[in-house]
Amino acid sequence: MRIFVCGMGVVGRAVCELLASRGPELRSRYGVPLTLAGVSDSRAIVLAGSDSAELDPLAVVAAKQAGKLGTMEGAMPAALPPRELAGRCQTLGIDVFVDCSPTDLKAAAVPTERMLAMLALRIGVVSVNKGPLATAMPALLEAARYNQVQLRFSGTVGGGTPVLATGSTLNRGETVTAIRGIVNGTTNFILWKMATERWAFDVALAEAQKLGYAETDPTADVDGWDAAAKVVILANAVLGIRATVQQVSVTGIRGVTPERIASAAAAGKVVKLIAGASAAGLTVAPQEVDAAGPLNTSGSLNAVEFTLSSGAVVAITGRGAGGVETASAVLRDLIDIGTMR
Amino acid sequence: MRIFVCGMGVVGRAVCELLASRGPELRSRYGVPLTLAGVSDSRAIVLAGSDSAELDPLAVVAAKQAGKLGTMEGAMPAALPPRELAGRCQTLGIDVFVDCSPTDLKAAAVPTERMLAMLALRIGVVSVNKGPLATAMPALLEAARYNQVQLRFSGTVGGGTPVLATGSTLNRGETVTAIRGIVNGTTNFILWKMATERWAFDVALAEAQKLGYAETDPTADVDGWDAAAKVVILANAVLGIRATVQQVSVTGIRGVTPERIASAAAAGKVVKLIAGASAAGLTVAPQEVDAAGPLNTSGSLNAVEFTLSSGAVVAITGRGAGGVETASAVLRDLIDIGTMR
Repeated sequence: MRIFVCGMGVVGRAVCELLASRGPELRSRYGVPLTLAGVSDSRAIVLAGSDSAELDPLAVVAAKQAGKLGTMEGAMPAALPPRELAGRCQTLGIDVFVDCSPTDLKAAAVPTERMLAMLALRIGVVSVNKGPLATAMPALLEAARYNQVQLRFSGTVGGGTPVLATGSTLNRGETVTAIRGIVNGTTNFILWKMATERWAFDVALAEAQKLGYAETDPTADVDGWDAAAKVVILANAVLGIRATVQQVSVTGIRGVTPERIASAAAAGKVVKLIAGASAAGLTVAPQEVDAAGPLNTSGSLNAVEFTLSSGAVVAITGRGAGGVETASAVLRDLIDIGTMR
Repeated sequence: MRIFVCGMGVVGRAVCELLASRGPELRSRYGVPLTLAGVSDSRAIVLAGSDSAELDPLAVVAAKQAGKLGTMEGAMPAALPPRELAGRCQTLGIDVFVDCSPTDLKAAAVPTERMLAMLALRIGVVSVNKGPLATAMPALLEAARYNQVQLRFSGTVGGGTPVLATGSTLNRGETVTAIRGIVNGTTNFILWKMATERWAFDVALAEAQKLGYAETDPTADVDGWDAAAKVVILANAVLGIRATVQQVSVTGIRGVTPERIASAAAAGKVVKLIAGASAAGLTVAPQEVDAAGPLNTSGSLNAVEFTLSSGAVVAITGRGAGGVETASAVLRDLIDIGTMR
């Protein structure tokens, strides 16, 4: 299976490293050979020389780290229009386009166009970029269905924790009717520090930034937009609700006060940023949840609860982020696509 | 896909009811038609009249509940030798044999022989009977591999909670190196009542029996054998450790005192019956675990933690038992087999 990796940040590089380190094992275990045939970052595209040539994933990582991706053999400027890039990928026999470019909900048009161009040429897509999914998932799913090609996105929710796979598995036996959970690690870390250390929001945010959990611009996390993107993906993938991020009612955690957290604690509750989806709608908002329940996760852990039509509840908990974990989710998607062919 | 359901207890009947109620939906959603072509209980076998005839699942359930399975058309005494039953199933075009007969680790020889006979004739097997798996899983897996036929057992661990599927999913991206968890709801209920109500073991056991969680003979649960069977299944299926129940070091919960529970509580811990599997071995024993962690589940809930080679830990929590949940796991297995064909 020939692969193009778009985006050479932490996740894209980790995917290349996993292709190098685990490729032979996965080939023998699942019968799926994974070959790197193209990569890109924001400035350059590097393509294999022919439809039987390949790129050395470790050489790509080394070039990227030395700032020399654009000088590799087969490199060209990144300013190729999406359809032209898709055409070149098709010529090179590329089977799956992996989008590891950074999520930006306000600039999702270009990556969305790129994915649609790939799907139209029946090139499968694995995305960890949440932008196109949050803003255009119904259209992307429809394009994949129409062109009978795979669109996968395990790494967008829960990182290495298989949240989406658990939802699909549950749907095969029963019907998942509602989802709620903690899908943003940064805000969980902040609320957890506010509760356990009795810090104010600003102090906890500064600590999260110091530890590298929160970006310098923490808007996507603390205002709830990262969680909103993820709840859109869960709603589409698991509940079959064809929504986009515009339909999510979003409240972030800036307004959560130490007083609210203290009065929750007095009632055996904790305040968490809860993403919820059901036929009643999609929401992201701080909510009081049972301190003894599975949603009271510490640190930056994620936790998602699925309610089934029988009334049973299944919860999954684990690390939500991390480049290696997310890259491992990409690998899982690639193997799933490879074993379905 | 033509199915034989062996065992007409709570689970077997629930499988028949689900075939009736969800069959049309599953057929349209996954393209897998599920047809009942044979059933049996401990006294009678009922077979469809030909390889194109079928049984009405609801008529089977009604006959069973009226004690009249043995008088249905196509009925014969259950004393058919395993190979002969397998031969008849083959003649009737049966694709999958579903074993819902009760687990008895001391009488696993007959159901094991039956499964091996089915696999030898390339009839797939879905089992919720843990006996054959606990005592002969390496041989069963080898028989399935050799005959290139499916052997599935989602319902044996976690009931409707997809514990085994989560392990397989995680293995596709990374490698699961260790598993530990609570896989027996009855003992969790007893230990939970001992901790929260400060009851002695005998009082909590009597309550569990009153509520229907524990059998009149509670040995399989409280002495750890049910958990031991499940840890064998997890070790074989997820870790690739070819063990049987003979290799598990098993300690039950009869020796857990209120004093031990109290001193654990004083240290922020709870005592749980923990099933563990790793390259170091398979164990079932009461252990102190962190009260704030995912293994501190209340009531009869199950919880299983998977440790990955990266060091990350993923936990899944949910109801462990229940006829409908287990039957839904059987349906999931049937769909998985049907969509692979």
